[in-house]
This record gives sequence, structure tokens and C-alpha cells, in this order.
Amino acid sequence: MDETPSDGKAVMTHAQQMLETHPGTVQVEAGALIACIEACSDCAQSCTACADADLGEPDVAMLLRCITLCENCSDVCVATGRVLSRQTEFVPELAQAVVRACLETCHTCREECERHADHHEHCRICAEICRRCEQACEDVLSALPM
Amino acid sequence: MDETPSDGKAVMTHAQQMLETHPGTVQVEAGALIACIEACSDCAQSCTACADADLGEPDVAMLLRCITLCENCSDVCVATGRVLSRQTEFVPELAQAVVRACLETCHTCREECERHADHHEHCRICAEICRRCEQACEDVLSALPM
Amino acid sequence: MDETPSDGKAVMTHAQQMLETHPGTVQVEAGALIACIEACSDCAQSCTACADADLGEPDVAMLLRCITLCENCSDVCVATGRVLSRQTEFVPELAQAVVRACLETCHTCREECERHADHHEHCRICAEICRRCEQACEDVLSALPM
Amino acid sequence: MDETPSDGKAVMTHAQQMLETHPGTVQVEAGALIACIEACSDCAQSCTACADADLGEPDVAMLLRCITLCENCSDVCVATGRVLSRQTEFVPELAQAVVRACLETCHTCREECERHADHHEHCRICAEICRRCEQACEDVLSALPM
Repeated sequence: MDETPSDGKAVMTHAQQMLETHPGTVQVEAGALIACIEACSDCAQSCTACADADLGEPDVAMLLRCITLCENCSDVCVATGRVLSRQTEFVPELAQAVVRACLETCHTCREECERHADHHEHCRICAEICRRCEQACEDVLSALPM
Repeated sequence: MDETPSDGKAVMTHAQQMLETHPGTVQVEAGALIACIEACSDCAQSCTACADADLGEPDVAMLLRCITLCENCSDVCVATGRVLSRQTEFVPELAQAVVRACLETCHTCREECERHADHHEHCRICAEICRRCEQACEDVLSALPM
Repeated sequence: MDETPSDGKAVMTHAQQMLETHPGTVQVEAGALIACIEACSDCAQSCTACADADLGEPDVAMLLRCITLCENCSDVCVATGRVLSRQTEFVPELAQAVVRACLETCHTCREECERHADHHEHCRICAEICRRCEQACEDVLSALPM
Repeated sequence: MDETPSDGKAVMTHAQQMLETHPGTVQVEAGALIACIEACSDCAQSCTACADADLGEPDVAMLLRCITLCENCSDVCVATGRVLSRQTEFVPELAQAVVRACLETCHTCREECERHADHHEHCRICAEICRRCEQACEDVLSALPM
């Protein structure tokens, strides 16, 4: 996580530190790659938490689609973040297919969360995090060396 | 897992039993769906085991790509098997994107495992399991109600 | 998966084939290890499917605990199956802690599923699969070289 | 992730926002819970990245144990972060067993990473992240309502 020390300079995130100390050549523009890895971690956690919060709502019966899409999104984000984290033998075509699936999953989940954003704050926040992950996926897709 | 009782009739697999007792309408042809869910479980385990076996080989330095692709394949198969197992609020477009990613990942992993099949029996077996999962993914893609 | 060819002899499961072709020395009695790896795969899938089936039931509001425990059980079973599949640098103490967590998770999930077994067939089946996984975990704990 | 806006006040992390908008009563002290959920996400990603970086090192044959323990640690951290994120039907005994397994896994992984910290910067960083996750696990264990 990002921390701002007393001198005001932002230190690197852990994902960034890990990438900078990688012994090989990273094949994707580092900024886009790190942003997507971090967005996947973040979205995976938020979606698990949103599905769980849905279960605690009085109108849980209206949230079945939201629960399912959040569970799917969390699983696909975990897999995508891992595929992108593996740079030693990176295969752009494989990453492309996985990131496209992540984009579709985040997009579908975000649309559903937005439908509940007015009455469930956790859905509003989760939708926003999914939207960031969608953007991060699009940026990585543009940055892949195809 | 499949068991054959004394009367010779095959009993249902657990994945099949779970699907048959699902309260909703399953939106994908059941045979193709179950085969793909089971192939994903199987391939996820085999790929984890193959990556680990690679680490135990004297020529581990020649197997780096195999290790990476097996790890990726295991992660994507876990996510895909879960997405397909969720039928209550099934979204065909989302499933399509995820299964396509799984097909690409299994295909790439299988090609690499095949390169080592002559000298590493675990790679030969893993390649075969990946090939089955590829086929199961193709069959589900054809069976999706798009 | 198990298949019985025409000559009546059961062929090895894929998990068994992968273990038999492992280049190193497997540090846990193979039968107990394979049974637990396969039970974890099986239980992970059944629990994902049971949580999803719960969402499709008219009495979903009575099944919130079942959904949560199934989701937890699926996640812990995936992790446990992977830890046990990695034999090249196996650490018994680590495996012990993880299998104990899996045993606790399967046990808690099974007890909840049993409460719904009379009215939901998928809960009855899932409880049975959890019970098998509990037993497989206990057998591996006894077989660990501590 | 943490962001510091122009007025100097730290905004909440996403995990914190999700927890604060949860409809139910959270059963673990929120600070310890959020720290552990975030440490698990962070450690899961770092361990996947460290295992991958190990594969890119010239002395990969000396890093087999590090690769294996990092893969295990990543898997157990993913499962633990998810179990802790599910608060609607939280079961302290289950969480305890899972967090104990996570503590053991992080501890074992950290000790191995530390052995390579002098010559591999990614191992040094990963060891530090594992150490933080160990501490976060201990803090959650103390905070569980047993």
C-alpha cells in the first residue's frame, strides 16, 4: 500500500517494488502493468466484501445477481492479477485473453452494482472499484506487445 | 469422482449430482457444462502438480516456461470452473469471455508441456489433461445460449 | 477422473498419475495424500455449487450461513489441495496447519449443510462431500511425517 | 490503496470503506481486521511475484524451496483474506484455524526468503511483507471473540 512519509515523497507500493527488483525484462509498460495488478487485488477484495454485505441486507433476494457477479469478478481478478504478476515467461496472447475476460467480468459486475448504488453504499463503492479495474484492464490491453 | 458399483452402472459424479439438484434452470447443455467444470478441476490440479514436478527435475532451468504456464493454467482453470458452477444468475457473455481465456491458457500450456513430454512423463500426462480441458472449453462455447 | 476400461481394471486417476511420475520422494503416504488432494478438489467444486444453489432457493434468507460457509470451504479447499500437491519442497508443519484449517472449515460447513439436508438435496450431497473431505484431512494429518 | 489528498487527510482504503458500509455488526476489532485483510492481499501478490522473480534468477536451482513456499503462501493468503472479508455469518473458530494456518505459512515463507535477502532484493522485500502479514495475523488472533 501507498504510504506518504514525512518528507512528502510517495514511496513505492509493494507491487511496484517487486516489479522493479525483477531480474528479467518486463514486457509490458510498467505503469500500466502495476496499476492493473493492484486494481485486480483491490477489486478481488471489494467484490468478496460486497457479495458478503449483500447477504446481510434485508433485500437480499433482490441482490442475487449482484452476489453472483461479485463472486465471479473476485475469482477472475485473482487469476488475472497472478497471470500479470508472472513476467519471467510472459506470453502476451495469453495475457490478452485473460485480461479481456477480466474486463468483461468487471464491466458486468459494475453495471449490476450500479443498479443498487443508490440504496447500498457498498455497491456504490464496489462499482467504482470495478470501473477502475476495467480502465486498468483496457490500459494493459493497449500496452501489450502484440 | 466416478465410481462403478457392483451392478456395473456408473453412478453420477459429484458435479453432476450438484447440477441435477440445482433449484433453477441450467442455461447450458448439462453434459457439456459438467464436462467442462470437471475438466477445469482436473486441469487445475494437474497443472499445480506439473509445475511442482518441474521444480524437482535436474533440468529445471529448461522448464521455466512450463512452470509459469502451468501456474497460469491452474489459476485460470480454478476461476473458470467456479464461474461455470454458478448457474443461478448465469451470464452467457461473461462465461464466454472466461471460457475463451481458459481455452487459450490450456492451449498455450499444453503446447509447452508437449515439448517436454518425451523426457518428462508428468508433462506428457499434463499435456493430455490440458488437451481435454481445451476440448471441454470448446464444447461449452458451442453450447452457450448466445 | 476414474474410468473403468473394458477389462475391468480401474485406471489411475489423474492426481495419482501425476504423483507417480513426480521426480522426487513423496513425503506422505501416497494413498492418503491422493485421497485428500482429490477430496479437496471435489469439495471446492461442490461448495461453490451449493452456495449458488442456495441463492436459487425460495428460502434464501434462511441459507445465509450456508452460503458463507460454503464459500469459505471452497476457498480453503482450493488452497489446501494446492499445498498438498506441492511435494518437491514439502514442509510437514506447514501442511499440518493448512490441513487442520481445512478440517475445521469442512466440519463447520458440513454441520450447516446437514441442517438443510432434509429440504435441500444439494445441501445433503454437499454435506456428504464435506464429510469425506474431513475424513481425508484426518487421514493426511495422521500420515504426516512429524 | 491509500491516497493522500491535497488537504493532507488520508482517505480510507477500499477495504476500510467496504467494511464501514457493511450492513451487519463486524465481530472483530475493525483496525486489526482491515490490516489483516490488506496484508493478505499484499502478501498474496508479493509471493506470486517473488516466485516468478526466482524463476528468472541464474541460481534458480537454489531457490526451489523459496518458489514453493511463496506459491503456498500466496494461495493461503488469498483464502485467508476472503474468509476474513466475510463478516455476515462470521465464525470465530473457523477464522482462527485459517488465520493460524496463514501465520504458519507466512512465517515459513519469510524465513526462507530471508535466507536469500542478501543476494535477491525481491526476496528481501517479500520477506518484509510476509513479516507484516504474520504480525497482522497475530493481531487478528488476539482480536477474535473466542
